[in-house]
Amino acid sequence: MSKPVSELVPSPRLLLGPGPSLVHPRVLRAMSTPLLGHLDPEFLTIMNEVQALLRTVFQTDNPFTIAVSGTGSAGMEAALVNLIEPGDTVIVGVNGVFGARMADIVGRAGGKAVKIEVPWGQIIDPHRLEDALKQAGSVKAVALVHAETSTGAHQPMEEIGPLCRRYGALLVADAVTSLAGVPVRVDAWGIDACYSGTQKCLSCPPGLAPLTLSPRALAVVKGRKTKVQSWYLDLSMIADYWAEGKRAYHHTAPISMIYALREALRIVVEEGLEARFDRHDRNSAALMAGLATLGCEPQAQAGHRLPTLNCVRVPAGVDEAIVRKTLLAEFGIEIGGGLGPLAGRVWRIGLMGESSRHEHVVTLLSTLEQIFGQHGWTKQSGAALTAALQAYATAT
Amino acid sequence: MSKPVSELVPSPRLLLGPGPSLVHPRVLRAMSTPLLGHLDPEFLTIMNEVQALLRTVFQTDNPFTIAVSGTGSAGMEAALVNLIEPGDTVIVGVNGVFGARMADIVGRAGGKAVKIEVPWGQIIDPHRLEDALKQAGSVKAVALVHAETSTGAHQPMEEIGPLCRRYGALLVADAVTSLAGVPVRVDAWGIDACYSGTQKCLSCPPGLAPLTLSPRALAVVKGRKTKVQSWYLDLSMIADYWAEGKRAYHHTAPISMIYALREALRIVVEEGLEARFDRHDRNSAALMAGLATLGCEPQAQAGHRLPTLNCVRVPAGVDEAIVRKTLLAEFGIEIGGGLGPLAGRVWRIGLMGESSRHEHVVTLLSTLEQIFGQHGWTKQSGAALTAALQAYATAT
Repeated sequence: MSKPVSELVPSPRLLLGPGPSLVHPRVLRAMSTPLLGHLDPEFLTIMNEVQALLRTVFQTDNPFTIAVSGTGSAGMEAALVNLIEPGDTVIVGVNGVFGARMADIVGRAGGKAVKIEVPWGQIIDPHRLEDALKQAGSVKAVALVHAETSTGAHQPMEEIGPLCRRYGALLVADAVTSLAGVPVRVDAWGIDACYSGTQKCLSCPPGLAPLTLSPRALAVVKGRKTKVQSWYLDLSMIADYWAEGKRAYHHTAPISMIYALREALRIVVEEGLEARFDRHDRNSAALMAGLATLGCEPQAQAGHRLPTLNCVRVPAGVDEAIVRKTLLAEFGIEIGGGLGPLAGRVWRIGLMGESSRHEHVVTLLSTLEQIFGQHGWTKQSGAALTAALQAYATAT
Repeated sequence: MSKPVSELVPSPRLLLGPGPSLVHPRVLRAMSTPLLGHLDPEFLTIMNEVQALLRTVFQTDNPFTIAVSGTGSAGMEAALVNLIEPGDTVIVGVNGVFGARMADIVGRAGGKAVKIEVPWGQIIDPHRLEDALKQAGSVKAVALVHAETSTGAHQPMEEIGPLCRRYGALLVADAVTSLAGVPVRVDAWGIDACYSGTQKCLSCPPGLAPLTLSPRALAVVKGRKTKVQSWYLDLSMIADYWAEGKRAYHHTAPISMIYALREALRIVVEEGLEARFDRHDRNSAALMAGLATLGCEPQAQAGHRLPTLNCVRVPAGVDEAIVRKTLLAEFGIEIGGGLGPLAGRVWRIGLMGESSRHEHVVTLLSTLEQIFGQHGWTKQSGAALTAALQAYATAT
């Protein structure tokens, strides 16, 4: 027998990292609701509601719009392994961790990943994509990360869908760090498969992956010659569980997480998508104005910065690990460090969903100023906060 | 914009189906705790605690003991696809839905599934297994369902581990409906990969799959020649996230579900495994005594009935769908129907975790008597309850 494990009393945290973001108390409360069975008629109604809400947030009419029973990466895997059959060519934009992950999954599914690699923080240029489409011959799909959590790059998508259609390729988009924080217009942009995670701009705990497939993507899934390698993520079977009137048992849905997602989506819709996008823009602009006074420059390409994930370079002479450690241990504030080649070189500050609030921006900036001041890394105390407040004043 | 979705107010349910089972209020409360980040040092301590508690419940010292970020079926898939490489032979016992699912997954992983098929409700005889091992030549693994949720059959496991070792095969066991309800002695029985779900005898919401691998199973995973087909369920990478001192980012853990599982496991350990198994036995014996008076005979082979999942044949002349519908709609009680060839022919009554309580047994039996009486399907009112109370009296 192991030693007794004590009561669960985690320290309070201001979550300003790359996710999870802060969860609204209404969502926490919904999650603690006693359970219905996963085939209960009342639960099936709840699933319908979640689907309708997800369509609103994805800005799509796709009937196939569901929550995959796993975290965002399960959404990525579900999208890719259901569309790809062995031998298929997939062009993958690789400008950070998540593009590289997509390419890895394409390979595991027996596909050939043609990578467009650019420095981390850059976007994938549509002209380079078109060149790749021309060269590659028959391309099953193009896979791009709309919001690269490892760099803060914001991939423009408007031109990509029409381009893919001209070359007969499906478009797969990773919207893990964008959905409900910046516009994700699945239908208007011609995205065929779009997935997200719940723990970012939806401000719901991690555990589900919203996913939508266009009718032509669904036709590809249903017309496969080979079985999908994953039973758990086989969308043709999962479709029969989510389809109204069918509800065939596949696996037990994560009921409490569905409750949480439903409440999180209700909050998004109550706020309104455009108001929510504006809020994310405003808070990010203020944060970045403040960070600039501390010498923190954005990692992402100019004009293509995500307001949801603010990735900034650590100023020369500053010990980034000490800053993160002090923030967490002394102030209960979490921000993220860099991944891969950016480890030790950047901070990733998430202002997503409930974390994207005026009070959190000023709390973080004033705390950073304090820590920088203690180590003699800043000259002018109060400059960051002043710059942020000016940015807010300009925005309103 | 979709039409407004109202407040979440599901009807109260007494969950006596094949899962989810009732969730203890302490678990619901733990789940509503504000989140830590998934790489927060405090969360890493919580992961260690969950691992230690899972080892107690699995009765194992396996260092690799984790919770997979998906429901029980994700645990099944993780166990199988990480051990199997293309061309491997796996002997699968098929005596219900979940054995058939295992065989399906083996095939998707490029393995050859040699099925031992027996009628639903029967167990897999060790002699037949030995014959299959002799005939099949080199066998990578034997996969058996310890607790078949579709039939209520309770597979004896004591002899299987040594048998598998004699033939150089790994033993994979599905303990979804047994873990923490009946003994699952991973080390004593020589099980190499054992997985479960949270929503059964652990009385936690669905969303995680406890999984443990023996050192020799882990060596097989680490010595693979080919990449695991699933990135999301690649246990060599997931091992680096759960390993103390490493904690390499793989995917974002479902934090709130980990909180819930931790609390559910604490409750199991507080009660004590043997006391918990006794409770499951006692309540099942009382239920079955009562059901016998209503003409409901067990589906599972004599001597091999699960106390956690009570699968009984619907008596001749009784409309099974009306009974389930009335229970749910008028009394808020969920029981399960049959799957596959047993659809319409059996009821599956789960007495798992918090659902396995004296008060739920008497509530269900008296309600069934009432419904049977209304339809003229029973002669002697009160007999079921009397028989159950006698069984309780005999047991104490």
